[in-house]
Amino acid sequence: MPKTTIRAGSNIAFIKYWGVEDAAINLPQTSSISMTLADAYTTTTVEWQSSSAQAGDQDDDIVIDGRTLRGEAGARVVRHLDRIRALAGTNQRARVASRNNFPMASGIASSASGFAALTVAACQALGLDMNATQLSALARLGSGSACRSLFGGFVLWDRGYDHETSVARMLFLPEHWDLYDLVAIVSHGEKKVSSEGGHRLAATSPLNQARVEHVKTLLPIVQEAIAQCDLEQLGEAIEWDALAMHAVMQTGSPSLLYWQPGTLEVIQAVRRWRDEEGLAAYFTIDAGPNVHVLCAAEDAPTVQAHLAALPSVVDVLVSRPGPAPYAVTDPLF
Amino acid sequence: MPKTTIRAGSNIAFIKYWGVEDAAINLPQTSSISMTLADAYTTTTVEWQSSSAQAGDQDDDIVIDGRTLRGEAGARVVRHLDRIRALAGTNQRARVASRNNFPMASGIASSASGFAALTVAACQALGLDMNATQLSALARLGSGSACRSLFGGFVLWDRGYDHETSVARMLFLPEHWDLYDLVAIVSHGEKKVSSEGGHRLAATSPLNQARVEHVKTLLPIVQEAIAQCDLEQLGEAIEWDALAMHAVMQTGSPSLLYWQPGTLEVIQAVRRWRDEEGLAAYFTIDAGPNVHVLCAAEDAPTVQAHLAALPSVVDVLVSRPGPAPYAVTDPLF
Repeated sequence: MPKTTIRAGSNIAFIKYWGVEDAAINLPQTSSISMTLADAYTTTTVEWQSSSAQAGDQDDDIVIDGRTLRGEAGARVVRHLDRIRALAGTNQRARVASRNNFPMASGIASSASGFAALTVAACQALGLDMNATQLSALARLGSGSACRSLFGGFVLWDRGYDHETSVARMLFLPEHWDLYDLVAIVSHGEKKVSSEGGHRLAATSPLNQARVEHVKTLLPIVQEAIAQCDLEQLGEAIEWDALAMHAVMQTGSPSLLYWQPGTLEVIQAVRRWRDEEGLAAYFTIDAGPNVHVLCAAEDAPTVQAHLAALPSVVDVLVSRPGPAPYAVTDPLF
Repeated sequence: MPKTTIRAGSNIAFIKYWGVEDAAINLPQTSSISMTLADAYTTTTVEWQSSSAQAGDQDDDIVIDGRTLRGEAGARVVRHLDRIRALAGTNQRARVASRNNFPMASGIASSASGFAALTVAACQALGLDMNATQLSALARLGSGSACRSLFGGFVLWDRGYDHETSVARMLFLPEHWDLYDLVAIVSHGEKKVSSEGGHRLAATSPLNQARVEHVKTLLPIVQEAIAQCDLEQLGEAIEWDALAMHAVMQTGSPSLLYWQPGTLEVIQAVRRWRDEEGLAAYFTIDAGPNVHVLCAAEDAPTVQAHLAALPSVVDVLVSRPGPAPYAVTDPLF
């Protein structure tokens, strides 16, 4: 069987996906909006084995960043491969290798780019004829935010009402707005609670419903801000929703506190630069301690230098709007 | 006229006062519960001048921590003295000196102990015959949380519905529970936005009403936890409300971000000690960056040593439940 190698960008959400209406299919409580990243991506090679799996046979062979994936993380990938096997009517085992060009599980959505790349590579390697919308729905089953990484540029994930309708679509091409995302890495540590677990906890926060309601008013504001390339309007909305999502996390049961001291150092600094230097930069934070700072192309060098000079920032990852998943010629094995 | 010198303890709120229903009289949106502190206090000497003020005369003479208070902070004290002058039917000027034994405006409620001490000293020096409930209402007009510092031990501020009914009362004597409050000072910096300004902003947060509603369910839980000296039940509730209050602050318009990197270092450490060492300590945070850590008397030395060893903690202030305001014999002038 042929090997297929696909690269998919991670994405940074402007309006977050947090909280599920139906955990079995990752049906979210709200729609969300993101930018697909050109420079933070996962590359995944899939090869389906020619021999069929037998009862008691070994599992799929899954290697991420050079290490065999085991335990619940491995089982999650196997379940996704099972979905694809079911669609293709096959019981072939898969060999999967995957590599991220950014640290896993630190607030950069490795599961988004990872499940997007896996979905496209695995389906294509089996010759499954699926359009982008169908692939988006399928990727969502692996990891909710992966459905957004099926598209390039600026992306809306419509909440929808069932498996077929809860899918992403592109709002604007990557070329529409040369917006920079500078990720200030303040910790390479792994999260104690995966995002997947956290989504189920959102409903335990007494603040969750208020966020869900307010997000409904923010969604058109963010779409309009992107349409107009209005960074101030976008920035105010994304900071609000990042703070509100973390408020929901922190006030759930159990309370999830993803922030580290460095997180606060960065977000306080971003606001200080804005107030004191007029530097138009705005932050957002995914389910982890690192801080994404959005700014215009012309301010990116200044913002990058400022971020790198903060004591708790160990690295700054720079990314621009990126394309939909694409094939690369060098397989990982 | 005789000088009167009164010492009043600050208080640490377990359920916070944040958000006003009627800003003109500091009528809060929710009831709140606090512990008056024995070891973080304000000492205030008041002397009414024998000559009456004339139009164009100089203002009251107000010195705090050795410096004459001017600007809006000074005007706020003068307005409070005006209320007391009105009650006594006098237009005498006052000489006021006040000293805090803890840093001002850093999340320890200097306005609470300050306005409590000022209210009692100023009224007593004029011979006004007022009971503790009336003094509590009067202190509330100066600074909302000051009404709680009119009582010792564990205190409930009933939200009430007007000036006379929105007053505090003691729930339990200080001797009821030897609970320690260790304040980890991570910054001596002054706040950019005073609490008084922030209260008016609470209503601008889309999350505020959800907090207000949930606090109604927490109030009896906290009262019961104090009655039973149940630190775990108290601790879970106070951490929730501290995080929820800061969520409201952060998601209001404008967004108030009182936390500093050190704030996160302390609260992450407290949870880590609890999880990994079984150390029963719980945090709360007022409108500032410092963190109050509550624990039992027998754990206080360990918690204090742990806190002092954190890189961003510059000082640890230790306090136990304290008494109602009391007279001291040494005047400040």
